[in-house]
Amino acid sequence: MAPRIHPTALIDAAATLADDVSVGPYTVIHGNVRLGAGTVVGAFCELGHPRLGGAGDRPLVIGDHSLIRSHSVFYEGSCFGQGLNTGHRVTVREGTIAGDHLQLGTLCDVQGDCRFGHYSRLHSNVHIGQGSTVGDYVWLFPYVVLTNDPHPPSEVRLGVTVEDYAVVATMTVVLPGVTIGSGALVAAHSAVAKNVAPDTVVAGAPAAFVRNADEIRLKDGSGRRAYPWRRHFHRGYLPAAVQAWIAEFGAAQP
Amino acid sequence: MAPRIHPTALIDAAATLADDVSVGPYTVIHGNVRLGAGTVVGAFCELGHPRLGGAGDRPLVIGDHSLIRSHSVFYEGSCFGQGLNTGHRVTVREGTIAGDHLQLGTLCDVQGDCRFGHYSRLHSNVHIGQGSTVGDYVWLFPYVVLTNDPHPPSEVRLGVTVEDYAVVATMTVVLPGVTIGSGALVAAHSAVAKNVAPDTVVAGAPAAFVRNADEIRLKDGSGRRAYPWRRHFHRGYLPAAVQAWIAEFGAAQP
Amino acid sequence: MAPRIHPTALIDAAATLADDVSVGPYTVIHGNVRLGAGTVVGAFCELGHPRLGGAGDRPLVIGDHSLIRSHSVFYEGSCFGQGLNTGHRVTVREGTIAGDHLQLGTLCDVQGDCRFGHYSRLHSNVHIGQGSTVGDYVWLFPYVVLTNDPHPPSEVRLGVTVEDYAVVATMTVVLPGVTIGSGALVAAHSAVAKNVAPDTVVAGAPAAFVRNADEIRLKDGSGRRAYPWRRHFHRGYLPAAVQAWIAEFGAAQP
Repeated sequence: MAPRIHPTALIDAAATLADDVSVGPYTVIHGNVRLGAGTVVGAFCELGHPRLGGAGDRPLVIGDHSLIRSHSVFYEGSCFGQGLNTGHRVTVREGTIAGDHLQLGTLCDVQGDCRFGHYSRLHSNVHIGQGSTVGDYVWLFPYVVLTNDPHPPSEVRLGVTVEDYAVVATMTVVLPGVTIGSGALVAAHSAVAKNVAPDTVVAGAPAAFVRNADEIRLKDGSGRRAYPWRRHFHRGYLPAAVQAWIAEFGAAQP
Repeated sequence: MAPRIHPTALIDAAATLADDVSVGPYTVIHGNVRLGAGTVVGAFCELGHPRLGGAGDRPLVIGDHSLIRSHSVFYEGSCFGQGLNTGHRVTVREGTIAGDHLQLGTLCDVQGDCRFGHYSRLHSNVHIGQGSTVGDYVWLFPYVVLTNDPHPPSEVRLGVTVEDYAVVATMTVVLPGVTIGSGALVAAHSAVAKNVAPDTVVAGAPAAFVRNADEIRLKDGSGRRAYPWRRHFHRGYLPAAVQAWIAEFGAAQP
Repeated sequence: MAPRIHPTALIDAAATLADDVSVGPYTVIHGNVRLGAGTVVGAFCELGHPRLGGAGDRPLVIGDHSLIRSHSVFYEGSCFGQGLNTGHRVTVREGTIAGDHLQLGTLCDVQGDCRFGHYSRLHSNVHIGQGSTVGDYVWLFPYVVLTNDPHPPSEVRLGVTVEDYAVVATMTVVLPGVTIGSGALVAAHSAVAKNVAPDTVVAGAPAAFVRNADEIRLKDGSGRRAYPWRRHFHRGYLPAAVQAWIAEFGAAQP
């Protein structure tokens, strides 16, 4: 199927658009962009933006079946797996490498030189400082900020690491160099100054240990454990992953 | 008076524009949109955006004499009374129902399935989670977040309720299922984990009772009470409402 | 050199563009705008936006060699020195006066009637309330909010003052009327309710004295002092300023 390109979209002849790509009105796509099959780009986006002092000659690669919503800006020199899904007004700077099925919510601001695994989901207005590392199946909620400078301003960069399945709730700052352990939960409105042990809950500013994550129960009347969340939350994941989680925890286990 | 439509605006022939509508350059309006008389839409907006998996067949209704500033995105399936007034880059998802004279500041992010009463005002960059309920004459200040998931991620939705005349100050998170009582004041940089009694002030993380709201005095040298704020703050409200407030509290009462 | 104007840019004939100005696709420039020599404006911007109830007749002046990135909105009635540098989606309301080499990060929201000195740098998503005063060489990090109303909503305006060389870290709220002293450091995720003495560090909500700034050491193995930051951080400043700082503190002094 031929690309469905709005007549007002400005697409450089050197850009590579695979089959069945759709581009919305007034969107600008530079020549260094490669869009995977079935990818949809909304209106008013700019893809392949040159980096500061750059020639716009590094590729921006977006995997198959991705969705980039309106008013988003992606710089050159980044690479996303298949199934990228963004909200509106996302900014992604150069040097970002992401796995499959990354979600970036509306207003997310990825500062560049970051790594994302597979199936991580950032809700609205998350700020990812340069040099951050985000694992697989991570959740970052609105207004979370991952920082990187231990004594700003300086030339020291200590990126944050968020391990697989970890959850950082709304309006939390993670301070430079911190590792959020696998399956940990950081409560809303926290400031995380030291490493968080896997499968624990921390809260406060500075954040401190509250309990083990598996002590929290779902508020749905079932009495089931709320964490690890992959016990009960399966929306939008691959059937193979969900089946593995069910095998790990049991389908209806409390 | 005929609509004043910029020649670069892309307006679907099925859209309904009442008298004296103005649409700015490069704005996109889908066929499911109905704009009330005298409404002004800025540049680079997209109105009637289809919801995920939707056909773009639900109406987006904007009342008379509204103002939607540039770069804003409204989804299908929402309805606003007259006098809606937005800043720039507002996002409103589907299923939002609002009364008259709602203000949404620059960068506000309304996640959908929300209710707003009349004359509520959201300042810049307020995030309204799905399922929130905001009353009449409410004030939400910059970077306030109303959440909805008590143990994220999950399928449980416990929306926040903010009652009439309540005020939530800057950079506060309201946790799922909380009700902010009528006329209450939540101080800046708080995390509200339990219900707030009407006409009280709470502060901190977690937020705790500080005093009754009517104990705060205006810092204008008058010695008058600062709350209920409708004693002294009348800018932009209907004369009938202001007269009722004056009758309730007296014109110059301390 | 003639202006390099994209053919889709909409530039009012009354606008004044100096030599070698570049304007990106789909950008709108009103007639009250004056762009200095060598200035670059990205895509999807609107410059010279009329203020509410205004006629669009006050000038917006942008100094030489500035860079305004995509999707930004500047209102009429503001004036910037040379070397303004913005991220994407910046909003600047009317009545803002700034010195040379101001940086405004992506999503910054300057509410108007503000003053900025020279070489101050705002990172992403900083919110500057009306009536704020920011000195020279100030740093404001992501999601910092400068407020102005001591008992919202009211007609009282008590702007924040941030003095030269001060640093406010991520996700901090500065409450109305507060002065952050020269060279002070406010830690991340703080709420600053009273004045901060020069060259001190405060943290917490409410923020309290922690130590003198010059007691913090760089985490780069050098053992050098991290503050005043102009001891060691020189990127992007004028050689004359850097030489003065080196003369003040010594080139390699611990």
